[in-house]
Amino acid sequence: MFTTEEYKERLRRTKEQMAVEGIEVLLITNPSNMNYLTGYNAWSFYVHQMVVILPEEEEPRWIGRKQDANAAKETTWLQHQHILFYNDDYIQSPIQHPMDAIARLLDKIGKGGCRIGVELENYYFTAKALKQLEKGIPNAEFVDATLLVNYLRMIKSDKEIGYMKRAAVIAGHAMKTAMDAIDSGRRENDAVADIYHAQISGTASYGGDYPAIVPLLPAGTRTSSPHITWSDRPYQDNDIVIVELAGCFQRYHAPLARTLVLGSPTDKVKNLSSVVVEGLNEALAAVKPGVTCEEIEEVWRKSIARHGFFKDSRIGYSVGLSYPPDWGEHTASIRRGDKTILRPNMTFHIIPGIWFDDYGVEISETFQVTETGCIALTDFPRKLFVK
Amino acid sequence: MFTTEEYKERLRRTKEQMAVEGIEVLLITNPSNMNYLTGYNAWSFYVHQMVVILPEEEEPRWIGRKQDANAAKETTWLQHQHILFYNDDYIQSPIQHPMDAIARLLDKIGKGGCRIGVELENYYFTAKALKQLEKGIPNAEFVDATLLVNYLRMIKSDKEIGYMKRAAVIAGHAMKTAMDAIDSGRRENDAVADIYHAQISGTASYGGDYPAIVPLLPAGTRTSSPHITWSDRPYQDNDIVIVELAGCFQRYHAPLARTLVLGSPTDKVKNLSSVVVEGLNEALAAVKPGVTCEEIEEVWRKSIARHGFFKDSRIGYSVGLSYPPDWGEHTASIRRGDKTILRPNMTFHIIPGIWFDDYGVEISETFQVTETGCIALTDFPRKLFVK
Repeated sequence: MFTTEEYKERLRRTKEQMAVEGIEVLLITNPSNMNYLTGYNAWSFYVHQMVVILPEEEEPRWIGRKQDANAAKETTWLQHQHILFYNDDYIQSPIQHPMDAIARLLDKIGKGGCRIGVELENYYFTAKALKQLEKGIPNAEFVDATLLVNYLRMIKSDKEIGYMKRAAVIAGHAMKTAMDAIDSGRRENDAVADIYHAQISGTASYGGDYPAIVPLLPAGTRTSSPHITWSDRPYQDNDIVIVELAGCFQRYHAPLARTLVLGSPTDKVKNLSSVVVEGLNEALAAVKPGVTCEEIEEVWRKSIARHGFFKDSRIGYSVGLSYPPDWGEHTASIRRGDKTILRPNMTFHIIPGIWFDDYGVEISETFQVTETGCIALTDFPRKLFVK
Repeated sequence: MFTTEEYKERLRRTKEQMAVEGIEVLLITNPSNMNYLTGYNAWSFYVHQMVVILPEEEEPRWIGRKQDANAAKETTWLQHQHILFYNDDYIQSPIQHPMDAIARLLDKIGKGGCRIGVELENYYFTAKALKQLEKGIPNAEFVDATLLVNYLRMIKSDKEIGYMKRAAVIAGHAMKTAMDAIDSGRRENDAVADIYHAQISGTASYGGDYPAIVPLLPAGTRTSSPHITWSDRPYQDNDIVIVELAGCFQRYHAPLARTLVLGSPTDKVKNLSSVVVEGLNEALAAVKPGVTCEEIEEVWRKSIARHGFFKDSRIGYSVGLSYPPDWGEHTASIRRGDKTILRPNMTFHIIPGIWFDDYGVEISETFQVTETGCIALTDFPRKLFVK
């Protein structure tokens, strides 16, 4: 939890941006943004819920399922009369939708004819949710405010950086556990069990939270499928294993990826790994305030081109506060065409993987932009691991 | 993985329902439904992807991100020319959307003017996704097909029941671990670390998959907030702890909840627990083919009413194959007004919790409807635990 002052400052900046965009009512349904503005934190985003921002009100209103209102009282800074709910018979009902109740509520407080910002591109604001709102308050004008709050989240406060550093300690601990746990003859799921244990137990002084993505550790030919999850197949001699995981503290993430070879790496894999590490090092060395995301990507691209490699996907993204299914902030990407200017206390996961049809290598860092350059949040050897 | 015959039978039933609803093209974006029809299984649902069903084609088409096409080749029964992709510069881009590419593709294969079924109420089909499709193929007519495949999933094949039984063994193992791990003075997150380890390591003969919801184990006054996640606070003497978790095998879930008191339960809690157990037992005894969901709820409601209790939320839902953020199938609910008729091999999680402002009790079972009644999938004592 942050101080009420920090939440109010976030809210102030949100209202400032609403004014710029001419938004009279802002409906926040992205759970990361709900948390950012109010502190709300529960696994209740599988039902419809939102935070309503009205410029004239000092505090947002939380609206959700009746049985989650207690969680809102417990985790937010809002006074209890700003915590509203709909009844359980709206849940997954064939005859009524939670947004019907919410539309009526908005109409009742006189907002049925306003220009309303909604997060159109958000896992927890379905196409149906928009349709029901449009039906319930047909005089409202709905405008896209998908990344309005996400962009405000890009520059972290010192306290947020402190949370990410704790997450990074957990990430290092979990990666060390992975390197110990993955072994020829051991099942993939048994390695993941150990990694999860490390991620959640955290350290003696603070516990770990659930990362927004499960540990990914494709092996063998599956290294060419970066998002395939584990099986109960035992690792084989000479498997390449890509481990991508995050530490998480109070919903703040520090992701980290490394590549491990069980046995002797082929020359191809050794060469690819040193190309990736060199490119990553050069990209990190280029980071400083004032540089753009695409300039960082260009440094990487030119570095690997010197060795005859080419990769056409983005190599990183802004990271921090998040909920499943993704720990990225969906704002800036480190890729061609992204002209976002780096500023102190921005945080990115730079993950320059190169995959071929039958093998791949990923080595990543989560970094904080500082006044003069950047620092990697996790202190974990930046190399190909061999066991 | 299931046999190609089983996938084809699922597809046949899907096409049959499409014909009933006059749907010429079906776009499946719910990852559980994608998996059900093709076997596709990867943590890639945080980007746009879908399975396209055309009645005239023997196999569906998978469309997703380029770097996930290998996962589709690896996990589905589809021939490789049915695996299509869009490039990485569509990902979280401010200037183009993956649905733009997908709309062009649908237009190219002559489907731009069809009556197209989409899953409007699905976490992975955003309001923006629909808008971009409507813009890309303005002559198409989009109709809601949200639960078309979900309803087909309700009656499980024997092989699916076998998977759920494996999940149930893992659930029992994880619940036993929870009862051992939760103790006065121990941090909540340390208990969760042990639970996760049990969920993922599974058994010696098969590994565990990630459940669609994290373990929930609110304690003390937080038991009145069923979806609040763990902290690193140590459990206290006399805490009530509600543990809700699932075992998961190959994406099939068997959820289970129990309540534990550290110390001596008050008479109020003991009484509430026996009321919940009695109501649960009576509800389970009433389950058999031909009975409706609302009749089961009525048995529960009358049972607790005899002891002066009343609960107004649903007490269960159809369960099985799922991905985060929810393991429910979003079809039938065990609640007033739900007239779904129970059939053999339907599977439900019945979770009759009663919460007050400062404490609550939950005791649940996942059951399979049989020819004559039902069986609980997990064999775990149905009682209040005291430690």
